[in-house]
Amino acid sequence: MYLSQSMIKVGIVGISGYSGLTALEILLKHPHVRVTYVSANNTEGSLSDIWPQLTGRTNLYCKKFDLKTAVDLCDLIFLAVPHTASLEITPGLLNANKRVVDLSGDYRLKNIKDYEKWYGAKHGDAKNLKKAVYGLPELYRQDIVKAQLISNPGCYPTAALLALAPLSAFHGHDISSIIIDAKSGVSGAGRKAKLSLNFTEVNENFKAYKVLHHQHAPEIDLYLSKFSNHQLNVHFVPHLLPINRGILETIYVHINEKMGFNELYSLYQKFYKTEPFVRLLPKGQQPEIKHVTGTNMCDLGLEISADSRLIVITSVIDNLVKGAAGQAVQNMNIMCGFKEAEGLV
Amino acid sequence: MYLSQSMIKVGIVGISGYSGLTALEILLKHPHVRVTYVSANNTEGSLSDIWPQLTGRTNLYCKKFDLKTAVDLCDLIFLAVPHTASLEITPGLLNANKRVVDLSGDYRLKNIKDYEKWYGAKHGDAKNLKKAVYGLPELYRQDIVKAQLISNPGCYPTAALLALAPLSAFHGHDISSIIIDAKSGVSGAGRKAKLSLNFTEVNENFKAYKVLHHQHAPEIDLYLSKFSNHQLNVHFVPHLLPINRGILETIYVHINEKMGFNELYSLYQKFYKTEPFVRLLPKGQQPEIKHVTGTNMCDLGLEISADSRLIVITSVIDNLVKGAAGQAVQNMNIMCGFKEAEGLV
Amino acid sequence: MYLSQSMIKVGIVGISGYSGLTALEILLKHPHVRVTYVSANNTEGSLSDIWPQLTGRTNLYCKKFDLKTAVDLCDLIFLAVPHTASLEITPGLLNANKRVVDLSGDYRLKNIKDYEKWYGAKHGDAKNLKKAVYGLPELYRQDIVKAQLISNPGCYPTAALLALAPLSAFHGHDISSIIIDAKSGVSGAGRKAKLSLNFTEVNENFKAYKVLHHQHAPEIDLYLSKFSNHQLNVHFVPHLLPINRGILETIYVHINEKMGFNELYSLYQKFYKTEPFVRLLPKGQQPEIKHVTGTNMCDLGLEISADSRLIVITSVIDNLVKGAAGQAVQNMNIMCGFKEAEGLV
Amino acid sequence: MYLSQSMIKVGIVGISGYSGLTALEILLKHPHVRVTYVSANNTEGSLSDIWPQLTGRTNLYCKKFDLKTAVDLCDLIFLAVPHTASLEITPGLLNANKRVVDLSGDYRLKNIKDYEKWYGAKHGDAKNLKKAVYGLPELYRQDIVKAQLISNPGCYPTAALLALAPLSAFHGHDISSIIIDAKSGVSGAGRKAKLSLNFTEVNENFKAYKVLHHQHAPEIDLYLSKFSNHQLNVHFVPHLLPINRGILETIYVHINEKMGFNELYSLYQKFYKTEPFVRLLPKGQQPEIKHVTGTNMCDLGLEISADSRLIVITSVIDNLVKGAAGQAVQNMNIMCGFKEAEGLV
Repeated sequence: MYLSQSMIKVGIVGISGYSGLTALEILLKHPHVRVTYVSANNTEGSLSDIWPQLTGRTNLYCKKFDLKTAVDLCDLIFLAVPHTASLEITPGLLNANKRVVDLSGDYRLKNIKDYEKWYGAKHGDAKNLKKAVYGLPELYRQDIVKAQLISNPGCYPTAALLALAPLSAFHGHDISSIIIDAKSGVSGAGRKAKLSLNFTEVNENFKAYKVLHHQHAPEIDLYLSKFSNHQLNVHFVPHLLPINRGILETIYVHINEKMGFNELYSLYQKFYKTEPFVRLLPKGQQPEIKHVTGTNMCDLGLEISADSRLIVITSVIDNLVKGAAGQAVQNMNIMCGFKEAEGLV
Repeated sequence: MYLSQSMIKVGIVGISGYSGLTALEILLKHPHVRVTYVSANNTEGSLSDIWPQLTGRTNLYCKKFDLKTAVDLCDLIFLAVPHTASLEITPGLLNANKRVVDLSGDYRLKNIKDYEKWYGAKHGDAKNLKKAVYGLPELYRQDIVKAQLISNPGCYPTAALLALAPLSAFHGHDISSIIIDAKSGVSGAGRKAKLSLNFTEVNENFKAYKVLHHQHAPEIDLYLSKFSNHQLNVHFVPHLLPINRGILETIYVHINEKMGFNELYSLYQKFYKTEPFVRLLPKGQQPEIKHVTGTNMCDLGLEISADSRLIVITSVIDNLVKGAAGQAVQNMNIMCGFKEAEGLV
Repeated sequence: MYLSQSMIKVGIVGISGYSGLTALEILLKHPHVRVTYVSANNTEGSLSDIWPQLTGRTNLYCKKFDLKTAVDLCDLIFLAVPHTASLEITPGLLNANKRVVDLSGDYRLKNIKDYEKWYGAKHGDAKNLKKAVYGLPELYRQDIVKAQLISNPGCYPTAALLALAPLSAFHGHDISSIIIDAKSGVSGAGRKAKLSLNFTEVNENFKAYKVLHHQHAPEIDLYLSKFSNHQLNVHFVPHLLPINRGILETIYVHINEKMGFNELYSLYQKFYKTEPFVRLLPKGQQPEIKHVTGTNMCDLGLEISADSRLIVITSVIDNLVKGAAGQAVQNMNIMCGFKEAEGLV
Repeated sequence: MYLSQSMIKVGIVGISGYSGLTALEILLKHPHVRVTYVSANNTEGSLSDIWPQLTGRTNLYCKKFDLKTAVDLCDLIFLAVPHTASLEITPGLLNANKRVVDLSGDYRLKNIKDYEKWYGAKHGDAKNLKKAVYGLPELYRQDIVKAQLISNPGCYPTAALLALAPLSAFHGHDISSIIIDAKSGVSGAGRKAKLSLNFTEVNENFKAYKVLHHQHAPEIDLYLSKFSNHQLNVHFVPHLLPINRGILETIYVHINEKMGFNELYSLYQKFYKTEPFVRLLPKGQQPEIKHVTGTNMCDLGLEISADSRLIVITSVIDNLVKGAAGQAVQNMNIMCGFKEAEGLV
């Protein structure tokens, strides 16, 4: 095997969900990680009972979460749990000096009232909310290095922020409107028995949901405004795509001053020049979900209207990888001083 | 509208399921039927709340089942309910002299012990079990005409019996083994929240289930043996297809005496010559599910091995139409003296 | 069968495509129509060879198009052919005093230069271009009654114009920007062997195409401006959905003056009050493609942003029915004095 | 990077197909391989033009095949080409003392007449046909070690032979009939523009094809008979599954003597005890395609009929991995003395 002097022990809480599984599959091949602990709330048993595809690839046994065990066995813990569950677990882990990458929405919105409005739940951990670092490496790499608690971005915000960061940072004052028409595969809804997620309900179908009312909109607003130093608000409309995984966002930005395509293109090219996981497509090409499926990539396409006043940015990611577990591993790599792309494609 | 002297009033119990919906969609266009009553166990409300696609096409209101109302409003009732539910409802309807087409499995197996073994439930209605007529028109048309209670065949048995009836009737003594490899779309599993039916679990997947243990096997055995006058037992293995609707069965029959393809083909051709809903494909062609989707057709393909000892019959139906609601309407047409194909394609 | 004094003879040119098939399936059940002629350019043979699902339902034989035969056999002809093909056929049919419903794009754009720019082909039939009536019944019913040549709207424009007509007619001066984010099932691309339409390329994938450059954009601009009496231009971005049929368009309209949701909703409610094929969903509900699949319905959903300045309209149709063959039949019904909804659901 | 003393240079001929791509994706992560050459017959250009998903992951440039270049640049070559293309390329590569793993069907059938019958083409390379080793490691590992030319098994035969090898080796004399009902995802048909492979033709559909006439049947017969030392012939019926990748075969074996389930299960357990890529599922469990997607695994399920005379074996693989490129890499690992599972999951 790949031996390493810098080997860390990692736990995954929420192993029975799709993000937890994806994290484990990445970490099982990671040269600097040993997965020492997995837990789930509703399921207990051999991992191969929960995920038969793992048979023969790991002997891990899944238990209900227990703080002491997690603390004893792990250096760093991924929380791949629904919102509110992280709130209960995180303080104990941090108190024990563990590092935490939280994939839920619990530490993303910095204003507690916003959290309570959008997530419909109380938030009692203002202390850690303040110190949580938003784990979008392309924007906040320096802060991630030394973070103890990473708030891993939502899937929709990841695709949106990577698409909008260059434009809003350099032309934020010039933006008059941002519309995000987002489409997500079904794994984005999590893994639960629900009639509206049944095959026969989703297959051969398509619809919008939570139109202008999705909890990822304020997350995009917050970090887009922060990063660009302009107050920006997006109109966000998500849709349910009949595929297993992947997000495509078509983003429409009205600008006050005309901009040429080449200027726009150069801006993005420079911004992402050295990024391993953002690819700007050649002029005239459009990103496709399948080109990033199973990878940590975000592919971007650019177009501009004939009157040079409307910019159309298309952005694709795999919601379970760059939109969740892959980005979590990328954050872990940065936190631990590993190569940022280690274990990732 | 199409006026008719012979207009009947029809009720559908179990309108919140896929078979109930399909029955209603057929009956709304049927020239001799007025749907006067719909009910469901767990849902109450305007039909367009349950099935938004029906908005503007009907003003029916769905209530919980009530025997008196059903009796008052209907001449004939379709029961599109899960097994055991029919057992509770049927006796009352029959006592009130109503005609019933039961789409559940409750009146198909004639031996109560068999029912209890395969359906895991008690059966307390031996009287009506005896008088129920098995509603496969191609085999039992004469009995259907005068039946008060129709036991509408299961989806898998419909495709299997139509595929096997000619061969087993004329060469039953010669059959040494029958294997049915069946594949069904997801609507065959009914409409309920269940993790294993989630889009992400079914899509891009395929598996066998209840291998050699499906409750439709004894139903096939019973009617195949009855119709052919030979004791025949099938080996039945169903699989879950990632499509909404449709069944394809690939049926392998070992025969003791060699048979030529032309002999076999003529046998089927004659047998189904005048049937409106069974189509024998030309030699060398294979049936496809999409060619029967939304129709009451059963398409059959025939092949025979080079050594003339193994016959391969392929049979496709739409599980919700010929495998459920369409066949129920076909039975109703026969019972009421309408044209057998009225309202059906 | 349904006899009628007003029985017409109808031909379908382009029967080997999806629109041609859909037209035929509707017309075979239409009480006032006898289909007397079908043709296709590349295929000759029994219709059941081309479409096995039609076996036993029709004896029509498909030949290459021949003007004289079409004229001899038909009162009215549907042209379900690719663009440019209609240009060659239409003049002859009109000269012979036949009525024509053209499903191609050949007679939609009224300016020949626009046609040549967007369709990349010459247009030599200025005379008939002028007299062609745009067959969107909800907007142009009176003109359709007496038309000899109907230019049947494109699939995307149908969904877009029905979504935008009320708002642009009454508030056209107030609209500052229209963005149409459109998603279409694969049958919209026609029926041809093409690698990019292969199952493995489309399935589990999603992408935008012809971003801001689709030939349906000028069609929407033209009729939206005409109907509203304001010069309006849309930004149009289509995407390819991994489903067989159906279109959903999410339409974003920026308005200069604030508008309340109730005002907006009432406007649409009144506008479509008596229309059989447009359904406005209750407040808070979103249309789904599957609710219109196989029907001639257009379902509309409305939302408005918190600041009352951005309207979001969602519109769904079945691209092969209301977006093509169903609307063609609706036009035929109007032209011939039949009930407008005859044969349609 | 992972440096290695035993680093080999590998070429892939046929990089524009799905197997070629899959091989490359595996090899790019393989610690002992440098991919030095890729070619395709109909496509020339940067690899990222052909497969945009590879952008940034490789700088390989694709040219038309040239023997001299291939010989100069590679130690070992994968031929991921259609049949007959391998026949033209292989002799030159072998003459230059290169090692070849041929994924086509050209060197599988050992009798030239059989090849010509089933593949409809002449075979002029009897010499290399004789020395080609059938690359199914679980059966022929020892021969693979020293082979110069590996004939990589077909996808269907891989799943079939792994399912049948234990039973036929130990109870071959007792088998009276073998039926293989096989279902394959669409990538098994290769990557080409073909109407019958279009999304709209395959999606929501299912059908059998080449019933009892598929060219993989004689391949199964040959190696099953060889390995078991009994003349065995299978009845083979393939079907087209509406998924991208994966094969499930349901195999029915009639036996003359009764066999208990435990005896059968032990036999398989022992046979595959130390195999890294074959997993026998626990009693009562059925394999699912998605549990092996993207992996080199073959999962097997066992059932036996109540009368102990019919064995039902279910076998799943990913047709592009264990059924093609993964198995090719497994063979390469064995040939080169690497760990057999290196680079594979």
